[in-house]
Amino acid sequence: MIVVLTGGTGGAKFVQGLARIAPQREITAIVNIGDDLRWWGLHISPDLDSITYALAGVLSPERGWGFAGDTFTCLERMRKLGADGWFQLGDRDLATHLRRTQLLEDGLTLTAATAEIAHAMGVTAQVLPMSDDRVETRVLTAQGELSFQEYFVRERYRIEPMGVRFEGAGQASPAPGVVDAICSASAVLIAPSNPITSIGPILSVPGIRHALQTTSAPVAAVSPIVGNAAVSGPAAELMRAQGYPSSPVEIAKIYADFLDVLLIEETDLTAAAHVGSANVIGARTIMRSDDDKASLARAALAAAEAVRSRAGA
Amino acid sequence: MIVVLTGGTGGAKFVQGLARIAPQREITAIVNIGDDLRWWGLHISPDLDSITYALAGVLSPERGWGFAGDTFTCLERMRKLGADGWFQLGDRDLATHLRRTQLLEDGLTLTAATAEIAHAMGVTAQVLPMSDDRVETRVLTAQGELSFQEYFVRERYRIEPMGVRFEGAGQASPAPGVVDAICSASAVLIAPSNPITSIGPILSVPGIRHALQTTSAPVAAVSPIVGNAAVSGPAAELMRAQGYPSSPVEIAKIYADFLDVLLIEETDLTAAAHVGSANVIGARTIMRSDDDKASLARAALAAAEAVRSRAGA
Repeated sequence: MIVVLTGGTGGAKFVQGLARIAPQREITAIVNIGDDLRWWGLHISPDLDSITYALAGVLSPERGWGFAGDTFTCLERMRKLGADGWFQLGDRDLATHLRRTQLLEDGLTLTAATAEIAHAMGVTAQVLPMSDDRVETRVLTAQGELSFQEYFVRERYRIEPMGVRFEGAGQASPAPGVVDAICSASAVLIAPSNPITSIGPILSVPGIRHALQTTSAPVAAVSPIVGNAAVSGPAAELMRAQGYPSSPVEIAKIYADFLDVLLIEETDLTAAAHVGSANVIGARTIMRSDDDKASLARAALAAAEAVRSRAGA
Repeated sequence: MIVVLTGGTGGAKFVQGLARIAPQREITAIVNIGDDLRWWGLHISPDLDSITYALAGVLSPERGWGFAGDTFTCLERMRKLGADGWFQLGDRDLATHLRRTQLLEDGLTLTAATAEIAHAMGVTAQVLPMSDDRVETRVLTAQGELSFQEYFVRERYRIEPMGVRFEGAGQASPAPGVVDAICSASAVLIAPSNPITSIGPILSVPGIRHALQTTSAPVAAVSPIVGNAAVSGPAAELMRAQGYPSSPVEIAKIYADFLDVLLIEETDLTAAAHVGSANVIGARTIMRSDDDKASLARAALAAAEAVRSRAGA
């Protein structure tokens, strides 16, 4: 079983690549829920949706979120009715949120609701929220503390972040299956997601970091930083806010206590490198085509397997 | 101020007619909420929506409910996700339900939420739910007790009704403004709505019937029964279940304690008639065109005014 820890945008592309080189039934995605929000009375899990849509083959390639070819009829009406409209929900997408909210109100856990939606969409990979408990990413700015979506979508990350915290993390438990999946994996991959606000919330759940430290599976991460900037989103700004320079190899420091190998963009690799105990190797990390996604997933898996071979040797 | 008591389908057409012959600001609609339901976690008020849409000019003329030209993208997805789909919500319509649910969760009363939605849609008539309390129409059948929407939409009223009751009515109060509107009206009109399950729930709220009995305004009703059948819907079956023959003049018996004049289809009027203290007069009650709607509203208003003239004489 291949386990991948992931957020939405970049992670969704990476998971698509992984699903091109391995059967979905052999993939477990452990997904960030720190960005989840209550919106129009609905429980929205943006990263769970992006990963589920990616695996179902319906993720919008243009937007990188939501349903391909979705319409926004309901959103347009909601704005006319005076509702907030900065967080955009398509009509097809809306069904996912309505259904999830309904299943949660019926007493299902987020894990069970996610599984039911994924199953209904034909996804055979296991999509697991990091936790069934509420963990909320809070971004501290000069304008006060914002939820991640307020910072990311409403403010379009134009406000300088000063720090990040994960509300509720201390009391949260890993969702059922998360620790087992990490401990029994053949390889653990960390998608090229924002290390602070996509992978960070996952690592903030007590027990998950320990599972990564102790698993016998090799752990390979893909850097979302190329040069000194993020491929997309505010990863660089958020890394700086948390005291890390935004350079590709810094990712290895954030994951230092469990990482075996880091893949960075090959043009960023000047020489064979180690950061702590992790190897740093070059790869083509920018995913434009489906082939790019598959190649990167293959490279990450090969890097993990190379670690295993050395360990076994 | 003209007050109209109304349900959805036939009532919505009648209210459209009324809005063609009188300024909306002079109309107060008191609307049935016995059909309200929780659906996909949302608070749905079918009759409030039909009346609001009718007054906003967006009611689907083909369906008689929902938004004109609406799409059903979200519904189609909901069915694929395993949700019940027998109660149909269009994408535009959905926004109304999401917004209402959100406003109610924010602590607004149904009256205030209805007013906010109506205002946002440009409606200047006053649209009042009969009550801010929950009153639920329950239809007793051989298959057990059903909610009105289960009986009407899911079972398409093919099950024989054996009786009707209004759960919660005993504890309900009229919504703010309802009793005042009736008592200070220049005319009270009862739309050609189902007397048992559209007007019945309104009358079941303690205080409303008394207001109708004591108001100085003339009260005129339009029969929804033509010949011995309802123009649309299960009014005839429900009247029989409650012990009334399904004939046009029976409507005057149901409303006997407050009715001044009943308008029935002119071909049903064989001679000038009285039922109890109410006059029964002929009119063209079947509304096919906008002109039909306006003519019927004008006839009902004229009939009410004739009562007033006699009373004043």
